[in-house]
Amino acid sequence: MKNYSIFKSRRLRSTPYTSRIEKQGVTAYTIYNHMLLPAAFGSIEDSYHHLKKDVQIWDVAAERQVEISGKDSAKLVQLMTCRDLSKSKIGRCYYSPIIDDSGNLVNDPVILKLAEDRWWISIADSDVIFFAKGLATGNKFDVKIFEPNVAIIAIQGPKSFSLMEKVFGRVITELKFFGFDYFTFKGVKHLIARSGWSKQGGFEVFVENIESGLDLYDHFFEIGKEFNVKPGCPNLIERIESGLLSYGSDFDNNDNPFECGFEKYISLDSNIIFLGKEKLKKIKSDGIKRKLMGVEIKTDNINLTRSINIMDNDGNLVGDLRSACYSPHFKKVIGIAMIKEPFCKASEMGKIEIEGKTLAVKVCDLPFI
Amino acid sequence: MKNYSIFKSRRLRSTPYTSRIEKQGVTAYTIYNHMLLPAAFGSIEDSYHHLKKDVQIWDVAAERQVEISGKDSAKLVQLMTCRDLSKSKIGRCYYSPIIDDSGNLVNDPVILKLAEDRWWISIADSDVIFFAKGLATGNKFDVKIFEPNVAIIAIQGPKSFSLMEKVFGRVITELKFFGFDYFTFKGVKHLIARSGWSKQGGFEVFVENIESGLDLYDHFFEIGKEFNVKPGCPNLIERIESGLLSYGSDFDNNDNPFECGFEKYISLDSNIIFLGKEKLKKIKSDGIKRKLMGVEIKTDNINLTRSINIMDNDGNLVGDLRSACYSPHFKKVIGIAMIKEPFCKASEMGKIEIEGKTLAVKVCDLPFI
Repeated sequence: MKNYSIFKSRRLRSTPYTSRIEKQGVTAYTIYNHMLLPAAFGSIEDSYHHLKKDVQIWDVAAERQVEISGKDSAKLVQLMTCRDLSKSKIGRCYYSPIIDDSGNLVNDPVILKLAEDRWWISIADSDVIFFAKGLATGNKFDVKIFEPNVAIIAIQGPKSFSLMEKVFGRVITELKFFGFDYFTFKGVKHLIARSGWSKQGGFEVFVENIESGLDLYDHFFEIGKEFNVKPGCPNLIERIESGLLSYGSDFDNNDNPFECGFEKYISLDSNIIFLGKEKLKKIKSDGIKRKLMGVEIKTDNINLTRSINIMDNDGNLVGDLRSACYSPHFKKVIGIAMIKEPFCKASEMGKIEIEGKTLAVKVCDLPFI
Repeated sequence: MKNYSIFKSRRLRSTPYTSRIEKQGVTAYTIYNHMLLPAAFGSIEDSYHHLKKDVQIWDVAAERQVEISGKDSAKLVQLMTCRDLSKSKIGRCYYSPIIDDSGNLVNDPVILKLAEDRWWISIADSDVIFFAKGLATGNKFDVKIFEPNVAIIAIQGPKSFSLMEKVFGRVITELKFFGFDYFTFKGVKHLIARSGWSKQGGFEVFVENIESGLDLYDHFFEIGKEFNVKPGCPNLIERIESGLLSYGSDFDNNDNPFECGFEKYISLDSNIIFLGKEKLKKIKSDGIKRKLMGVEIKTDNINLTRSINIMDNDGNLVGDLRSACYSPHFKKVIGIAMIKEPFCKASEMGKIEIEGKTLAVKVCDLPFI
């Protein structure tokens, strides 16, 4: 596989931590919300093993916030998501698919309720801010919408709890999953959530005071040697094994939330008003024609750079493979694919052509673990 | 300067031409509208000289279209832009800043009027589709909005006219600047505009029939030897010398169109209804506090990867440098910067710190040429 350079410019925004991770050995970037997101520090597989054993510090400033505040903010936030937020609590995070008028996905953010009239939408890779602005203007909502200067540091891995306790004290270990609160580092308060884009446990510091955030970033490495702390980033292998879906990779604005397995976040029976509700009711009653499924691929390794059609032996389209990696845990290549009916069940077989080779594909259930 | 790899995935979409340009020697990518956009084929300066002398074929599929059709389509398109489109004609392209409710820029697309009730918004790098969907839903407009499968090939450079004539016949040379029409290649009709993101002359083929587009892409190289045709891409040096602005690099959603020198596209006196109109009236009467200006930088070369503050000798912020390159034409380093009052005039001096060096900066007018 040939490597291609990323051509940097202001348009691919740097983060407050970029100069630090470049000294620490970042080797590859992806772009996420028009911003640099580290994608590798050398070997992805080495980083995967480290993430599952110790603790990593991630520059995930590219996980941008859309702040919505004002009198109609709760109405607007609810309008955008099919998840019922009517009983949502301040200090909690809510994984909430954002849906357009045709019932398709716009994003799958985590929404933080900061106050009854103030929310952060912590977005995946699409410009939710313009969707919110368009809706607010069209509906004449009394809201303020902007992208605050928040640059998240994620602390991920089983030893993240010990590392965070050493910095913030015992109290931080009492934070419940998807809860957030304010904790002090050298006199500066930071919003910290027990969250993050891995299944290895951890926290995200929503840094607003950038100077203090940079100091905190360095501090983790200064005091973290006993936990074998290393720089890292969202890990392709770990996230596929864990079944963490990626907007843009595994699904996008051409897919609906039923096809992506988001049933439990779709509140069709409540009285809440959200976009695409009638469309989703119809999709539910008609039944879906395709679904995101796991696949096992008969090969030793794979480098998937785009989606690839999965065919059956008679030349019928089975679906398309959207993400894949070699899994050290399962000792085989696994992937995530949008599979068409009637192939949406475990053990269905197909094949793909990649880099001149034909490989057998077996459909399986998600999540893998 | 260390190079960093781009970590490819389905989320950074490949184009129909990606496998071709990779065989032809692309060395660097940027990401534009969640898609791979070639940024270099080896030396940018060599490519610049070739572009100004001969003809290049560009994979600019990342210049995505947002199609808006239906009864209220003209109303929605006009609502989004401050340019008066009430007298717009079918078969013409219109450079049209898109403005939000606060009077700031969302994008600076070229809008193609395909029919009275069908438009393509040929977008710069932001998700205009979600802005349009939000507005349409909120206003209950009767429109259909989607991203059609269009993968543009640009033909740029002074010999583009001869190359295009050889393929499409004499008739294509009669197309006026920013006009478009349909032309036939081997029995397949293609929408072709006399447009493109350089000032060296050229065309853009809005490829809808991908199979024919791939054939056309190859055909240009087969028959173009006499014009010294080469693969290329939007060129940093040529676009800065020519004063072609880049959304995300030179301006973004924090800037208004007056600050960016778009006065002639702002129709405040007409009766048309567009977002931010009252805000723009107020900005005009209050006067702007900063403006995009050219700068000359005292050095032999520059590699600008992010914006950098320009300071004066007393430690005051003069502005921020957003794009820069060495210009072979002017034989000096030039750039584009947002300059604050009272420094917004030619010959004002400042300085930047970059890669450990302090460089003198002189403000100048735009465009450079």
